[in-house]
Amino acid sequence: MTYEVKSLNEECGLFGIWGHPDAAKLTYFGLHALQHRGQEGAGIIANNDGQLKGHRDLGLLSDVFKDEKQFDRLAGKAAIGHVRYATAGSASIDNVQPFLFNFHDAQFGLCHNGNLTNTRTLKRDLESKGAIFHSNSDTEILMHLIRRGYSVGLLDNVKSALNTVKGGFAYLLMTEDKIIAALDPNGFRPLAIGRLVNGAYVIASETCALDVVGATFVQDVLPGQIVIIDDAGIHIDSYTTEADLKICSMEFIYFARPDSNIYGVNVHTARKNMGRILAKENPNIEADIVVGVPNSSLSAASGFAEESGLPYEMGLVKNQYIQRTFIQPTQELREQGVRMKLSGVRSVVAGKRVVMVDDSIVRGTTSKRIVALLKAAGAAEVHVVIASPPLAYPCFYGIDIQTRQELIAANHSVSEINDIIGSDSLHFLSIDGLKAGIGLGDQICTSYFDGIYPTPLYDYEADYNLGLKAKVSFY
Amino acid sequence: MTYEVKSLNEECGLFGIWGHPDAAKLTYFGLHALQHRGQEGAGIIANNDGQLKGHRDLGLLSDVFKDEKQFDRLAGKAAIGHVRYATAGSASIDNVQPFLFNFHDAQFGLCHNGNLTNTRTLKRDLESKGAIFHSNSDTEILMHLIRRGYSVGLLDNVKSALNTVKGGFAYLLMTEDKIIAALDPNGFRPLAIGRLVNGAYVIASETCALDVVGATFVQDVLPGQIVIIDDAGIHIDSYTTEADLKICSMEFIYFARPDSNIYGVNVHTARKNMGRILAKENPNIEADIVVGVPNSSLSAASGFAEESGLPYEMGLVKNQYIQRTFIQPTQELREQGVRMKLSGVRSVVAGKRVVMVDDSIVRGTTSKRIVALLKAAGAAEVHVVIASPPLAYPCFYGIDIQTRQELIAANHSVSEINDIIGSDSLHFLSIDGLKAGIGLGDQICTSYFDGIYPTPLYDYEADYNLGLKAKVSFY
Amino acid sequence: MTYEVKSLNEECGLFGIWGHPDAAKLTYFGLHALQHRGQEGAGIIANNDGQLKGHRDLGLLSDVFKDEKQFDRLAGKAAIGHVRYATAGSASIDNVQPFLFNFHDAQFGLCHNGNLTNTRTLKRDLESKGAIFHSNSDTEILMHLIRRGYSVGLLDNVKSALNTVKGGFAYLLMTEDKIIAALDPNGFRPLAIGRLVNGAYVIASETCALDVVGATFVQDVLPGQIVIIDDAGIHIDSYTTEADLKICSMEFIYFARPDSNIYGVNVHTARKNMGRILAKENPNIEADIVVGVPNSSLSAASGFAEESGLPYEMGLVKNQYIQRTFIQPTQELREQGVRMKLSGVRSVVAGKRVVMVDDSIVRGTTSKRIVALLKAAGAAEVHVVIASPPLAYPCFYGIDIQTRQELIAANHSVSEINDIIGSDSLHFLSIDGLKAGIGLGDQICTSYFDGIYPTPLYDYEADYNLGLKAKVSFY
Amino acid sequence: MTYEVKSLNEECGLFGIWGHPDAAKLTYFGLHALQHRGQEGAGIIANNDGQLKGHRDLGLLSDVFKDEKQFDRLAGKAAIGHVRYATAGSASIDNVQPFLFNFHDAQFGLCHNGNLTNTRTLKRDLESKGAIFHSNSDTEILMHLIRRGYSVGLLDNVKSALNTVKGGFAYLLMTEDKIIAALDPNGFRPLAIGRLVNGAYVIASETCALDVVGATFVQDVLPGQIVIIDDAGIHIDSYTTEADLKICSMEFIYFARPDSNIYGVNVHTARKNMGRILAKENPNIEADIVVGVPNSSLSAASGFAEESGLPYEMGLVKNQYIQRTFIQPTQELREQGVRMKLSGVRSVVAGKRVVMVDDSIVRGTTSKRIVALLKAAGAAEVHVVIASPPLAYPCFYGIDIQTRQELIAANHSVSEINDIIGSDSLHFLSIDGLKAGIGLGDQICTSYFDGIYPTPLYDYEADYNLGLKAKVSFY
Repeated sequence: MTYEVKSLNEECGLFGIWGHPDAAKLTYFGLHALQHRGQEGAGIIANNDGQLKGHRDLGLLSDVFKDEKQFDRLAGKAAIGHVRYATAGSASIDNVQPFLFNFHDAQFGLCHNGNLTNTRTLKRDLESKGAIFHSNSDTEILMHLIRRGYSVGLLDNVKSALNTVKGGFAYLLMTEDKIIAALDPNGFRPLAIGRLVNGAYVIASETCALDVVGATFVQDVLPGQIVIIDDAGIHIDSYTTEADLKICSMEFIYFARPDSNIYGVNVHTARKNMGRILAKENPNIEADIVVGVPNSSLSAASGFAEESGLPYEMGLVKNQYIQRTFIQPTQELREQGVRMKLSGVRSVVAGKRVVMVDDSIVRGTTSKRIVALLKAAGAAEVHVVIASPPLAYPCFYGIDIQTRQELIAANHSVSEINDIIGSDSLHFLSIDGLKAGIGLGDQICTSYFDGIYPTPLYDYEADYNLGLKAKVSFY
Repeated sequence: MTYEVKSLNEECGLFGIWGHPDAAKLTYFGLHALQHRGQEGAGIIANNDGQLKGHRDLGLLSDVFKDEKQFDRLAGKAAIGHVRYATAGSASIDNVQPFLFNFHDAQFGLCHNGNLTNTRTLKRDLESKGAIFHSNSDTEILMHLIRRGYSVGLLDNVKSALNTVKGGFAYLLMTEDKIIAALDPNGFRPLAIGRLVNGAYVIASETCALDVVGATFVQDVLPGQIVIIDDAGIHIDSYTTEADLKICSMEFIYFARPDSNIYGVNVHTARKNMGRILAKENPNIEADIVVGVPNSSLSAASGFAEESGLPYEMGLVKNQYIQRTFIQPTQELREQGVRMKLSGVRSVVAGKRVVMVDDSIVRGTTSKRIVALLKAAGAAEVHVVIASPPLAYPCFYGIDIQTRQELIAANHSVSEINDIIGSDSLHFLSIDGLKAGIGLGDQICTSYFDGIYPTPLYDYEADYNLGLKAKVSFY
Repeated sequence: MTYEVKSLNEECGLFGIWGHPDAAKLTYFGLHALQHRGQEGAGIIANNDGQLKGHRDLGLLSDVFKDEKQFDRLAGKAAIGHVRYATAGSASIDNVQPFLFNFHDAQFGLCHNGNLTNTRTLKRDLESKGAIFHSNSDTEILMHLIRRGYSVGLLDNVKSALNTVKGGFAYLLMTEDKIIAALDPNGFRPLAIGRLVNGAYVIASETCALDVVGATFVQDVLPGQIVIIDDAGIHIDSYTTEADLKICSMEFIYFARPDSNIYGVNVHTARKNMGRILAKENPNIEADIVVGVPNSSLSAASGFAEESGLPYEMGLVKNQYIQRTFIQPTQELREQGVRMKLSGVRSVVAGKRVVMVDDSIVRGTTSKRIVALLKAAGAAEVHVVIASPPLAYPCFYGIDIQTRQELIAANHSVSEINDIIGSDSLHFLSIDGLKAGIGLGDQICTSYFDGIYPTPLYDYEADYNLGLKAKVSFY
Repeated sequence: MTYEVKSLNEECGLFGIWGHPDAAKLTYFGLHALQHRGQEGAGIIANNDGQLKGHRDLGLLSDVFKDEKQFDRLAGKAAIGHVRYATAGSASIDNVQPFLFNFHDAQFGLCHNGNLTNTRTLKRDLESKGAIFHSNSDTEILMHLIRRGYSVGLLDNVKSALNTVKGGFAYLLMTEDKIIAALDPNGFRPLAIGRLVNGAYVIASETCALDVVGATFVQDVLPGQIVIIDDAGIHIDSYTTEADLKICSMEFIYFARPDSNIYGVNVHTARKNMGRILAKENPNIEADIVVGVPNSSLSAASGFAEESGLPYEMGLVKNQYIQRTFIQPTQELREQGVRMKLSGVRSVVAGKRVVMVDDSIVRGTTSKRIVALLKAAGAAEVHVVIASPPLAYPCFYGIDIQTRQELIAANHSVSEINDIIGSDSLHFLSIDGLKAGIGLGDQICTSYFDGIYPTPLYDYEADYNLGLKAKVSFY
């Protein structure tokens, strides 16, 4: 959530609903709870008796939807919506989802969370057959595959398309009379089903979005499943038999909201557990207080504190108004001590040996800054404990870690990192500790830590082996 | 900070600096740290070799200053700035400070935190002598008094004016060659002095704003003091001998940032202490977990947890994107369970007896909603503990509690409030506990709790005695 | 240009340039001169050494491009641009041109002025082959046809595509190393080539855009021609031998700017001629003064005045600030005489017999209002003379006259219209007079007046024969 | 109206109404017709049963009022409004009128068209007595004088204040129960009274604003008059007996809308007369066509054409979309021939000897550009005729001609100007011709042409005599 200082970005949040007169408005509220999954753009497509209309734009959800009147156009009992994450280059409205496709014989709305691994191959192949893509996203590919399917019914063509795309994906497809949701065979991305009091079904990237609209949790969508929601209710099927759950561990470590549950595991509880285990794995840190980096590391910090018996203190305060602040200190002012996002609380940390708990280290620059900030506030020692293992490998399934070059842990030992960030000691959670903290055994994907990818990498294989993975924008 | 759900509002934040080439920019950063003290409007006046220029507008600081280029107009080595709190009726640019006064023989910039108690009398008197006021604020009065002073030098006229206005005030006055700061004889509002590495002096409503610009704390401005900052450095004087510190206890309870220190007391620590004492005062609550209402009650909650030995859990999650969200659920949707600001975390609270820690109760509506939300998330019992005494009397020194009618504790017993908000038990901190938690003895103002006002109330006296205090807009 | 009160709308303006370091900026200035051809949206694609980047948005050109810095992204020596006309339903950014197509092996920018007559057939056929369209416009079709072409070189595929689309079109296609322009076989839409002092070639919908950028007129693009502009200069070819010029007469009557020349005919001069001939055809109108409806009818009015010997007076004044005025008088206020766009000048028209010259009558509502306005200002008589024949048939080549139902002259005799609009007499220019005024003989399209279409109507044929042409949005 | 290229600016437009349920809305429409008198800012104050509320902002009227809902706050049967002209330095919301003054015992709305000549003296005097001014405008002075008046009733204090201020002024003062309008003793600025069908009275700077709201003209406000409009109807009085009409001739030459009448003279007709007389005064210009500079010179040009017998042609076309265009050609592009505002029509002017009619020459830069533009379009000769005398003296009564230095005719002979602007000959209207054209004899102010000021200049006297008049911003 401290997305300003991290280079980790989730690839989006999804919400869909079928069967409520305020479908678009509920989608808005659902997306509002998923805003942390994407701040670049947002959109909603509503289905009004078979006619699809949409609105989407760049910006936060509250920028895109400012006016109650916007929902007049989005009447209807069903809707899907999307929030999209922020990257510099691709900040074009063309990439903001859901996409609305108008054919002479049908309309479709489509949105996507995740990243395909055979995008390049599929795009080239489709383009050589006359296909024209309008966005940089790989979401459109599914629509092309569906429309070019050889089967008779829509559903068969969707299933066939789902078997053609590879990688990490959660899709919502709105047709004139149903919502079709689907999850990749490894379930890299979370997707949960809920039900409203009136019987309407909702589907969302995280359960916090179900809670916000007052829905009761029904079940997680399972790997390889395809879910159809329409006037007849809900129907769950599988498009493949080769499913093998490998939910992204980063969802637990950093991305998901603490009040969400994924496969029965509460994210706050998992983080607190990771903090506890981290304390167990590092029993010999001599310190006076435990301080979490707000906001994403507070759960882990409280776990660490409880386990270690050290008091849990608010030694760092985050400015709540940083989100849309355009004026930034110059380098010169920064050197004079001007800072905006985080403040160290002198009266809490001065003279203290501080255990600083953070969720992860990407480039190391943020950690370095926070350590310096605590020391400037008088901390006698700063021991950095990270509630996840060293991040050493890129992700190809939907998290924006693009190259090994940017990852400090891919290029430096723990001891070197300790020197670089200026901490007095540095400790990472073990992979086993991570698994124990989450409690889903081997059903989580830990490739960022161990480089073991649960699937072939297709287009990325060659680059990856060369250690020279280019920017995604290349494709 | 959960200002959306409270009806408590601080009356503003001040920042001033003399002696740095980036004075306006530093003022911006300082105000950014004080944004929680006022979200309605913001402004900065810079002093460029004796020429004053300003920019101010309605909105958050980051809305008012969006563009680096705006600071080109605000060149100069000195600046003052202001953030203003939000009320419905007076949302006019005319009221946004600092005010810039252009006379044929001088320029002044003026801003103010606090509330005068003899505004009506002074305004009528001045108007009867031909004065014209341009805003609804009572800030202008000081300028009129200064300009109509009979003394020879500016400083004597300022002192005379400071002795004429009554109530709570912290002023910053920018002239062509100095900044003059002043605090009321009771020091109701906080005001602190800091120094930058380059020797420049800064002055701010809270020390967190000193930290943000890299300034070292020098001292708090004391009641009845007048501070002059200019090229010669800093000079501290008194305009009255009848000073008697009565710093607003609400600054500690709710308003100030946890990383600020006021008269040597860290706000987070004070809150944690209050939480501890609250636990001591209520040793018999049988519960499983402690949950704080984010964000302002987290310190108190951790204190309560430590003292009581109960685990401190994240049972409530606050949406971080709520600040500028315009679309709100209808009453009907709210009844269906749609909510946006706070979520109860089912997996944390379900089946648990919860101690819910909040900082204060104003009308009771928010508490009622949060209790319901925890119960809807499965909490077996909800015991509400409030880290301050019952709020039963209005404030006339700068906090927007306008009438006794709105205050639930002015009209209901604790037991009645417990029924109204639906909690299983309800406990307030005692006034003695509050004093002990803050640790400044009788130097705090507790009039909201005991109705004992440290000064005469002047214009408000009659209304107040009748128990029919009208809206401030009446004056 | 009084586009607010007319229901006649041009389908767009085009501008392209190859060979100037400020290509995008010059495109901006060129489009600025073509703004009257489309106020809904605008865009520019620049070519920077083979890399295409674009910016487009809804709104007037000056809204879309507000900041010099926007042109930093649009560096390069070549650019194409487009302004688009306003319709209610399709006001989506998806329809704003030029379109930028990114293929794995190429980039294209494409924009279009005109209307195809076989859109529906082509779209259905292409969709049945897997094509996906992203806008409602028929512009995309050309790109699909080109990419699906069977020929080896791009140019042959472009030519083949140009022979497949039917109707009215002027295209600009930007590739990595050239601009390709093309005009339909009847040259319904104008398109002119110019040259800058530095040798760069420019191409634009009207010559006024050449003038504005300081270009010298080279020649009109002729029907059926395809023009290639690249580093080697300009190359003009034909993609068909069946060319037959039928330039839209409405360009002369109403759309084009008076300072533009089309096929050697100055628009102002043509209009003045039409006014003269109208006066000759109606020698017996007894009147005192001639008043033109500003701004589009002023040329015709001055011609009428000169020929008739009557003084030309400013009896109607148009408010110049009407363009973006959102507040409109209610029906009740309108009945009380409140009006905003046009004012009758009492001291000019009071007691006078007025010849009111207008360019055309579409629905009759505007004419009725202006006649009433002149009478309210005291005109003794109002004789309406229209500098074009009665508008009785729709256009399928790029002007937004959609159905016969809306056209008053398709449903009423001249005498009936005279009664409806409340004039004392009403006179239209004859078709022969129109031709004589323009001076291009039978090389103009007059189908709106005589129902004789120079081409088959394809998709529209059936609807048209039934007299029940549906809205274009149907397709 | 070609305000972009002139340095002549009117000082504002006024509108007031008493007695209509849609008073604020009608004020909006009235101001819309007066927009040419001021584009910097606009505002409306409405009177709702004695309670005054207002809205004002920088920008065009249509920017300031974008939403019907804004008029909900402006309910009431009476309103006053103002449009303000644009200068660079003073573009602050503080200066946008009408001003709303809130006293403990009364409310006032005040707006002003004109310029006082004893501002400096009065401001210094008032400030020395404790007055505080909030804007740079001299409008506030009247309010201070009224509030400091020694008389018993408001009206007497207003009259007394009107006798204290000197220079050019038209005021509208809204009180709780009436509108008070007043004109300076020379009537430098126009002000007209009208009546609606329902009996409500309206008052406006120009009659075109009466027409637009459907009001019938009643009379011009005469010099030295004070007009009271309230529920009892209208009451006209005088505050001085020393009235002597000297209406600004520039209103007829350039500022006022052609459909306005001032003291019975229609502006278009006056301009056409000036053009005729200009032709009579210069019978020997050998030319082929007459071309007016759009839009303000078209009336004069048609008069010139009729008198001279030369055809009146559209040789110059003005881009109608220039108003809010931010992107401007660089000097380099301008030299390459890029232009945006005016185009010369080659096919009209090529090879022709052109009489170019303009209303006035201020600095000469615009004339030079237009002459060059006509020659670039092929004009064989360009004879410039100006429908006013040489502008050689500043105005102190409300037109923004600040110093003699900027005025080309103050520093150069006609022959020199002819050389500077590059015309083949140059001719100005004589002062007698101007008077004859307007037809009000010596009742017009011609000080810009002859330096004879109808009043003492007060504050400006010394500067003026020294020929070194400083910028107004000095005061």
